Amino acid sequence: MIRIGIFGYGNLGKGVESAILQNPDMTLAGVFTRRDPSCVKTLTNAPVYKIEDAEQMANEIDVMILCGGSATDLPQQTPELAKLFNVVDSFDTHARIPEHFANVDDVAMKNKKTAIISVGWDPGMFSLNRLYAGAVLPEGKDYTFWGKGVSQGHSDAIRRVEGVADARQYTVPVPDALDAVRSGSNPDLTTRQKHTRECYVVAKPGADLEKIKNEIVTMPNYFADYDTTVTFISQEELDKNHKGIPHGGFVIRSGKTGINKENNHIIEYSLKLDSNPEFTSSVLVAYARAAYRMNKMGMVGCKTVLDVPPAYLSSFDGAYLRKTLL
Amino acid sequence: MIRIGIFGYGNLGKGVESAILQNPDMTLAGVFTRRDPSCVKTLTNAPVYKIEDAEQMANEIDVMILCGGSATDLPQQTPELAKLFNVVDSFDTHARIPEHFANVDDVAMKNKKTAIISVGWDPGMFSLNRLYAGAVLPEGKDYTFWGKGVSQGHSDAIRRVEGVADARQYTVPVPDALDAVRSGSNPDLTTRQKHTRECYVVAKPGADLEKIKNEIVTMPNYFADYDTTVTFISQEELDKNHKGIPHGGFVIRSGKTGINKENNHIIEYSLKLDSNPEFTSSVLVAYARAAYRMNKMGMVGCKTVLDVPPAYLSSFDGAYLRKTLL
Repeated sequence: MIRIGIFGYGNLGKGVESAILQNPDMTLAGVFTRRDPSCVKTLTNAPVYKIEDAEQMANEIDVMILCGGSATDLPQQTPELAKLFNVVDSFDTHARIPEHFANVDDVAMKNKKTAIISVGWDPGMFSLNRLYAGAVLPEGKDYTFWGKGVSQGHSDAIRRVEGVADARQYTVPVPDALDAVRSGSNPDLTTRQKHTRECYVVAKPGADLEKIKNEIVTMPNYFADYDTTVTFISQEELDKNHKGIPHGGFVIRSGKTGINKENNHIIEYSLKLDSNPEFTSSVLVAYARAAYRMNKMGMVGCKTVLDVPPAYLSSFDGAYLRKTLL
Repeated sequence: MIRIGIFGYGNLGKGVESAILQNPDMTLAGVFTRRDPSCVKTLTNAPVYKIEDAEQMANEIDVMILCGGSATDLPQQTPELAKLFNVVDSFDTHARIPEHFANVDDVAMKNKKTAIISVGWDPGMFSLNRLYAGAVLPEGKDYTFWGKGVSQGHSDAIRRVEGVADARQYTVPVPDALDAVRSGSNPDLTTRQKHTRECYVVAKPGADLEKIKNEIVTMPNYFADYDTTVTFISQEELDKNHKGIPHGGFVIRSGKTGINKENNHIIEYSLKLDSNPEFTSSVLVAYARAAYRMNKMGMVGCKTVLDVPPAYLSSFDGAYLRKTLL
């Protein structure tokens, strides 16, 4: 049995806890939280510890899955925990991945631990698909579309607008843009042409709706570059119809082959997820298995999904996989 | 530069020759053929040798890409050539893969060569996607659809019917079945519900068309289990509209997460290929790079796509891949 620790118990941590139940070769050794452990009730009655207690449990945990945020938690926690544990994280601040990799690699190498960072779907499964498609079709073009799905950051930005009580924002790929890419015409697409943004907003009583709407659609970085729709709804309607955290998206590569580049090929990978955090958690758990195996084989240091032999993710052995999947 | 040899010069071999031009870290060392080399003109004026000459060129070729057929060529050639070369093949007789793996592994291990078998799209990229999706969503169901594309085997079967001059058969996925799978309803689908078969047939002068049609649609194994349409056309029309070798398909996994399995997720991978052999060749070439690198690192023996770290397929280094793809 692979003994898993969960470090941080929000949506992602709960998703990992559920996912472990689906993997018969794994067991949950404990949940680590900043809160008072006696106040935290886990979904499966797993034991809860303070985060400070983790270091005393180095011999009882094979892989620690870090479930904190990328802004402040993971840059500090992943290198710290890689001193004692094999670790997996979902660090997703794209621009800072090289720096995070270097920090984690240094510690993991010194302590002979295996650390897999930036695991999830983007970065993660989408990155893998960009890699495979680009290696197979070197002369081509990549397109990534996100959605339809909830953007937490954009929803938060709307909630900071004066007069807004609550909000939910969906990123939506533009169907015509998807069709153009799938046709093999290799279009150049602007930000506005690729995605629209749909905002469902609950206004405070007496708020100026026109003013709220205008402030949202002109907000720089978040909405100004997109065609944005704002729909005012009641809190009841938001709670009823917009409480899920769905997401997904598409990675498409269009490329040419042939001595005269006469043949076109489209490789498309897509996800349609009812729960963004639960899917990310499921990816983290599969990579925890890989981290455990790679460490047993002496493959230490910092890794990403691009480095992990696919078979290491599966609970089945090589002979079974060859027989059933090839 | 990685020096590639091409063993067998049909559609697949020509595809490899074209694909090498798109990979700046590779060079074509030679083409090996059963025919008289002086009668074979290559697309890029690469040198042509007799297959018997291969063994004298062991020091001039880093990876031999085998481009023969799975029925009789590869079961004999891959183990034979793995004595002297790192090899990549596209062996696709699913039921015999474990046996082929064992034969090749034995020779490759003894001779410290790296052999990657069953490379292409199915087996190959589709197998990879079944593996990743199954590891991430252990509680779910896999669906593979093929087409729209030309089945060479089914086209050949029609050509053997009395009165048929020429034929082309397309395998076509049923749109309603695809939609049902994508809805997450996890349907049980019969052979007939998943694919239809479209046959374009050129009859010989004076042939009995009803008899031909009946013989096709009732043919056991090939057509009897499918809804099959037969359309009679002229040789000119077949030559004009049906000479390409397109193919493709879909691998879809539908799976549940959550403590009460309340959330559903759909992972879909699809290919739309203008040229089946050229795409397969492009996959072979990317895996030739991996075979070269794995051999340098001492990773010898028989491997499949399931064993190869994704980054080994790319001509770019790890730091660049992390910066641009994650």
